[in-house]
Amino acid sequence: MIDLESVRAFFARAPFMVDLGVVPTAVGEGRCETEMLLQPRHLQHTGQAHAGVVTALADHTAGAAAQGVVRGGGVAITAELKTSLLRPAIGSKLVCVGTVVKAGRTLIFAESDVFAVIGEQRMLVAKLSATLAVVNPP
Amino acid sequence: MIDLESVRAFFARAPFMVDLGVVPTAVGEGRCETEMLLQPRHLQHTGQAHAGVVTALADHTAGAAAQGVVRGGGVAITAELKTSLLRPAIGSKLVCVGTVVKAGRTLIFAESDVFAVIGEQRMLVAKLSATLAVVNPP
Amino acid sequence: MIDLESVRAFFARAPFMVDLGVVPTAVGEGRCETEMLLQPRHLQHTGQAHAGVVTALADHTAGAAAQGVVRGGGVAITAELKTSLLRPAIGSKLVCVGTVVKAGRTLIFAESDVFAVIGEQRMLVAKLSATLAVVNPP
Amino acid sequence: MIDLESVRAFFARAPFMVDLGVVPTAVGEGRCETEMLLQPRHLQHTGQAHAGVVTALADHTAGAAAQGVVRGGGVAITAELKTSLLRPAIGSKLVCVGTVVKAGRTLIFAESDVFAVIGEQRMLVAKLSATLAVVNPP
Repeated sequence: MIDLESVRAFFARAPFMVDLGVVPTAVGEGRCETEMLLQPRHLQHTGQAHAGVVTALADHTAGAAAQGVVRGGGVAITAELKTSLLRPAIGSKLVCVGTVVKAGRTLIFAESDVFAVIGEQRMLVAKLSATLAVVNPP
Repeated sequence: MIDLESVRAFFARAPFMVDLGVVPTAVGEGRCETEMLLQPRHLQHTGQAHAGVVTALADHTAGAAAQGVVRGGGVAITAELKTSLLRPAIGSKLVCVGTVVKAGRTLIFAESDVFAVIGEQRMLVAKLSATLAVVNPP
Repeated sequence: MIDLESVRAFFARAPFMVDLGVVPTAVGEGRCETEMLLQPRHLQHTGQAHAGVVTALADHTAGAAAQGVVRGGGVAITAELKTSLLRPAIGSKLVCVGTVVKAGRTLIFAESDVFAVIGEQRMLVAKLSATLAVVNPP
Repeated sequence: MIDLESVRAFFARAPFMVDLGVVPTAVGEGRCETEMLLQPRHLQHTGQAHAGVVTALADHTAGAAAQGVVRGGGVAITAELKTSLLRPAIGSKLVCVGTVVKAGRTLIFAESDVFAVIGEQRMLVAKLSATLAVVNPP
């Protein structure tokens, strides 16, 4: 699953990604890039994107990067995630880069960087670190 | 902010909480309870609630518990959060209990337990641990 | 491994636990309690126990609680841990309570509470949340 | 505090760093590198360096990187840390690189990469992500 077509289908099968409007823009071995347009309904009471929106984007992008390195029919499921919210996620668009840090047979460690795009500028606003379990569907 | 009316207003001011349909059901000193109905658009491709939905619910509920113990006009902002996804969040409704673990002048540690409600049953599906910074709005 | 004798042997086999002076004091199903005397060499430049000491104690205690629920020869290994350092860990002794939150076949979620003992008082100073993988030794 | 001499003094003031044998080897703006020789007493029952040792090294190195960017007498204290244990930390020596991800006035986000050195090889064995509070000593 490391061609863009397959990854687009992967995101299209996840209703919450469709709901948020997250779309993959590039993929590679152990790597996935995505973006989403920020809409008023995605915001926190402080005017920035909600931590839940940022985490959803970062988690699914890291998960797609992880899924891309799973061999033989397994499914990568997030066991735990940590999000560091470095700066307010303000702007018209969020861009996310997910990467696999270490892929094992049953556990995959992955990370995401989330950037807010304001005009020409790209600002790192959050970092996610996750542990995924590779499970075999019934 | 520890009467239910104020906490309802607090959630109503956060567009993403309104979008997800999260509503507070009980509050106390350093404590907040919420719930949301799971809709098809909240799901992961595996049929369970997306980690981002679970985290959004858990983060905002812990944040409301934290906000309730802030004195003098400060705003509690999540600096980082960790979510442990113990079991698939399946069912008709999620219920969340947020509690303050330790409140300082500039940092608040808070947690949330998220339960999936299936019929009469309530199952613990996720735990969140967060650090919040108390900031003074301009 | 849920009798105190076996758990003592488990800690005695871990050189760093012997080095720190961590000893188990009580065990139960999915539960382990330990303590260690704080010595000057365990401290941070600020006079409190070092975050690494607190984490070592909390991780191994949670790990022992997890190991106690593993069936059939598997070994519980920490994949990731988070420590929240709520208050300075000052005093003569640290006491730790580790509990299993959810035990699966390949993943175990466990937690620890660390208390500083000052005279008659017991103060919660740190909380650990960990994910452990159950691996089969060769 | 970004000359090597000052950072050596910083580590020498922390008894647990002296006890473990951690020494800084290079520093820069928002950056610190350290190393420690692994001794039998640092190990886990599985023969690898204990998660507490790895975390102590990673936390203090990230903390030194953070302390280097604090202006005006404040002290950077770890509020929370997460360690991902990617691979067994086996070998004669651990090397750690700590970096500041984002420095604010009251909060600093920092990370560390821990490498095990086996002969000529350097292998990434752990990653730490931490949030530090800047406090003013009395």
